[in-house]
Amino acid sequence: MSKKSKEKALTSQQEDFSAWYNEIVLRAELADHSPVRGCMVIRPYGYRLWELMRDELDRRFRETGHQNAYFPLLIPQSFLSREAQHIEGFAKEAAIVTHTRLRATDDGGLEPDPASKLEEPLIIRPTSETVIYEMFSKWVQSYRDLPILMNQWANVVRWEMRTRLFLRTAEFLWQEGHTAHATEAEAEEETRRMLGVYRSFMEEWMAMPVVTGPKSESEKFPGALRTYTTEALMRDDKALQAGTSHNLGQNFSRQFELTFQSEEGSEEYAWNTSWGVSTRLVGGLVMTHGDDRGLVLPPRLAPIQVVFVPIGRTDEQREMVLGRIRELTDRLSAGIRIHVDDRDNLTPGAKFYEWEMKGVPVRIEIGPKDLEKGQLVLVERVPAEEAERKEFLDQQEAIAGLEDRLERIQARLLEQARVRREESTTRGGVASVAELGRIVEERGGFVYTGWCGSDECEARVKEETRATLRVLPDEEFRSADAPTRCLCGEASETEVVWAKAY
Amino acid sequence: MSKKSKEKALTSQQEDFSAWYNEIVLRAELADHSPVRGCMVIRPYGYRLWELMRDELDRRFRETGHQNAYFPLLIPQSFLSREAQHIEGFAKEAAIVTHTRLRATDDGGLEPDPASKLEEPLIIRPTSETVIYEMFSKWVQSYRDLPILMNQWANVVRWEMRTRLFLRTAEFLWQEGHTAHATEAEAEEETRRMLGVYRSFMEEWMAMPVVTGPKSESEKFPGALRTYTTEALMRDDKALQAGTSHNLGQNFSRQFELTFQSEEGSEEYAWNTSWGVSTRLVGGLVMTHGDDRGLVLPPRLAPIQVVFVPIGRTDEQREMVLGRIRELTDRLSAGIRIHVDDRDNLTPGAKFYEWEMKGVPVRIEIGPKDLEKGQLVLVERVPAEEAERKEFLDQQEAIAGLEDRLERIQARLLEQARVRREESTTRGGVASVAELGRIVEERGGFVYTGWCGSDECEARVKEETRATLRVLPDEEFRSADAPTRCLCGEASETEVVWAKAY
Repeated sequence: MSKKSKEKALTSQQEDFSAWYNEIVLRAELADHSPVRGCMVIRPYGYRLWELMRDELDRRFRETGHQNAYFPLLIPQSFLSREAQHIEGFAKEAAIVTHTRLRATDDGGLEPDPASKLEEPLIIRPTSETVIYEMFSKWVQSYRDLPILMNQWANVVRWEMRTRLFLRTAEFLWQEGHTAHATEAEAEEETRRMLGVYRSFMEEWMAMPVVTGPKSESEKFPGALRTYTTEALMRDDKALQAGTSHNLGQNFSRQFELTFQSEEGSEEYAWNTSWGVSTRLVGGLVMTHGDDRGLVLPPRLAPIQVVFVPIGRTDEQREMVLGRIRELTDRLSAGIRIHVDDRDNLTPGAKFYEWEMKGVPVRIEIGPKDLEKGQLVLVERVPAEEAERKEFLDQQEAIAGLEDRLERIQARLLEQARVRREESTTRGGVASVAELGRIVEERGGFVYTGWCGSDECEARVKEETRATLRVLPDEEFRSADAPTRCLCGEASETEVVWAKAY
Repeated sequence: MSKKSKEKALTSQQEDFSAWYNEIVLRAELADHSPVRGCMVIRPYGYRLWELMRDELDRRFRETGHQNAYFPLLIPQSFLSREAQHIEGFAKEAAIVTHTRLRATDDGGLEPDPASKLEEPLIIRPTSETVIYEMFSKWVQSYRDLPILMNQWANVVRWEMRTRLFLRTAEFLWQEGHTAHATEAEAEEETRRMLGVYRSFMEEWMAMPVVTGPKSESEKFPGALRTYTTEALMRDDKALQAGTSHNLGQNFSRQFELTFQSEEGSEEYAWNTSWGVSTRLVGGLVMTHGDDRGLVLPPRLAPIQVVFVPIGRTDEQREMVLGRIRELTDRLSAGIRIHVDDRDNLTPGAKFYEWEMKGVPVRIEIGPKDLEKGQLVLVERVPAEEAERKEFLDQQEAIAGLEDRLERIQARLLEQARVRREESTTRGGVASVAELGRIVEERGGFVYTGWCGSDECEARVKEETRATLRVLPDEEFRSADAPTRCLCGEASETEVVWAKAY
């Protein structure tokens, strides 16, 4: 689809990060607002990004022994209410189906037909623990039926009041893994394994470094025993919870009679886990790498990895250049996703602008003079050194080196994101709530402090600083000098990470 | 998951086709009933089948220039009502969202919070024409923005009263293609192109032959100008509408102001098409090939194409046999989907029974004696000749020939289905409604007759015979001697196909 030719310049990140984000999502044609409040339309470019994420995650889920299945969109109200914390967490954002037929009104309009009112309202799934464990309880008889390792790719609805494209929408797409195990240890191992799958996907494919570890009690999933999280830091120094993995203990198996006969013959409740990532990851990708020229996509997830722009004033020139481009691309591995932009109604400049906005990692320009010299101009979306923006290269060498170049770009984006995160991280010496508040206000980023472990203390910090307790970081992320005191002055039980968050 | 060890024998097709179908779907673990009336759970084996269908269809959609996108689940009631026939078609099966919050009742229960009542009810999409063309109208300005060729993989809800797993469920999964074009001719060409994509997929992958052509006015999609269909004949001689492609004309573009500036500068309404197939195809696959031993899957869609069953009384024997199986399977192309059934709690006989039930095209048995002789036993799920059920083959040759064998099985299943359909087709000489009624009652199958083209005549035939007008067959399917008279005695305008249908 063509773009309006004269657009005002993109708002800079510095000026207004939030406006920058919204403009990028719309202008790069990732998504659009829909006529239904809070629901988005994912456009082909954004959906392709999601498909590439999905395919790689799906591969990793299968590799770890999971199978896909599909469970109903609609959940009986009574199911949701069985687990007390669960319903508490979801009751206030439930899309409720109450009728199943429309009828004509006297004035020629339509209304829900009162005669079609459901005896029990149905809730559009906000998550599927309840209906899935109900089904597991039908399928499981003995320890031989365990573990069950399932995953579902689906849409869910949570009626949020304040929504933002990809980051918080009333309807979103996600995957939810659901498993049942014979022992607590196996469930804990599975919860940790899937957290690891998320982490390596986020780092290796999204080039988005994350801090992993458990959530505090107050931040865990409604109904879980323990929630583990992957926390990323965006370019505006706010945190994003990118994916979570829950050890549900026996909380749901007790409510849904999910029992099995053990090898010894006794009747036991199964141990469950669930874990999910959503289209929110697309928003995370935008805010991890994007800059004032637009999107920046890591090559492994870029729908287009290399765009070729032919240059030429006459039809004849353009035909010759296109011929050469075809010769060169024929030699490329089928694994590289390329696009030849041969539109004749846009100037090369307009094309450059569009593909930079869309975050394509590598652009190659070839003009009539390049044909003779056997050279081309190559521009990386984010060059290693800004001074080297335009590279004049031998055509054959440049094409032969593309695969390696994409790998280098992928690695560099991760490294740059890691450096940015570390620069925005404050460790050690933060000794009071007031000081945390100042850092969060002036600087943002991750702030490591000690924590006494008390819910009340956590709530007070949140209240006073507007930072939330993001994660109890796993050992590798902890400070060499772990703080010995909580912000409240009590002895610290564990180090924690605070940040303002999406 | 293990199966209950003692199951009663499968009902035969002859005895009760409908019972046979339900038993197969449950026992082969394709799907299960859910706690929500009319909604199904698609189990991993059935979902894998659907994924294999989806991947191949998706490949064909991309090859024909379409891109995937995602539109909202919820549609404002007023949108659905804009196109008069459209709302007429869907008003009586609408799942209606009226509230967005639950609140506690005095007796400790929950109810939809009256304060959360939506000003305008939202309908869970029964299909997405309305919301999609509303979005297209935002995106399209000029002829340069056309055509738009999009597809969506999604769930939809139609509140059906009488449901059957896969064939008719309140919620189902499907794809819906939606396109916009500058001219009527292009839209018609697209409608036909996608009908062709469906047909070749159904024949080449599902091994399910179909008759293609337009539907009558009374059977077309609510809001379409013309609907084209692919009609298959099931093993009980009833028809299944497997996929449809609609030329929507300008019916929706006029209601949603989907206009564009033409090359000449005038403002024009776009021409739309939509086309879809759903999880109903899984039901069609079951009823096209299944037999009294269970499912029969064409190799291209079989989640497992070859199952290896090691035979041996002692652990040592089984270990040796498994070692040989590993050697043999290492040599197989990665393209072949194999499974080695090394469970130690089932007899070989129980395994054979299970894999036949699940329709695996080829089973290979190897026992201790086969190791010395370098041979194996190969059993095709549906052998060319029933007498040759067990083939004793050289191990190396059998493995080297597997790929060709799977192709032969694929081709044979299509051929057998075609022969069955032709044997169940009545052509020529059916001159009265009473005669059609007799044939439909006694024999079933497709019945070709002449038709005067009148809606009233069609309605009367349907009323009296319970057969419906399935399709106005495309030329290649028409009888050499086309009937000259309609069943009503008037002159025939076109040949048509009648059948009882799912």
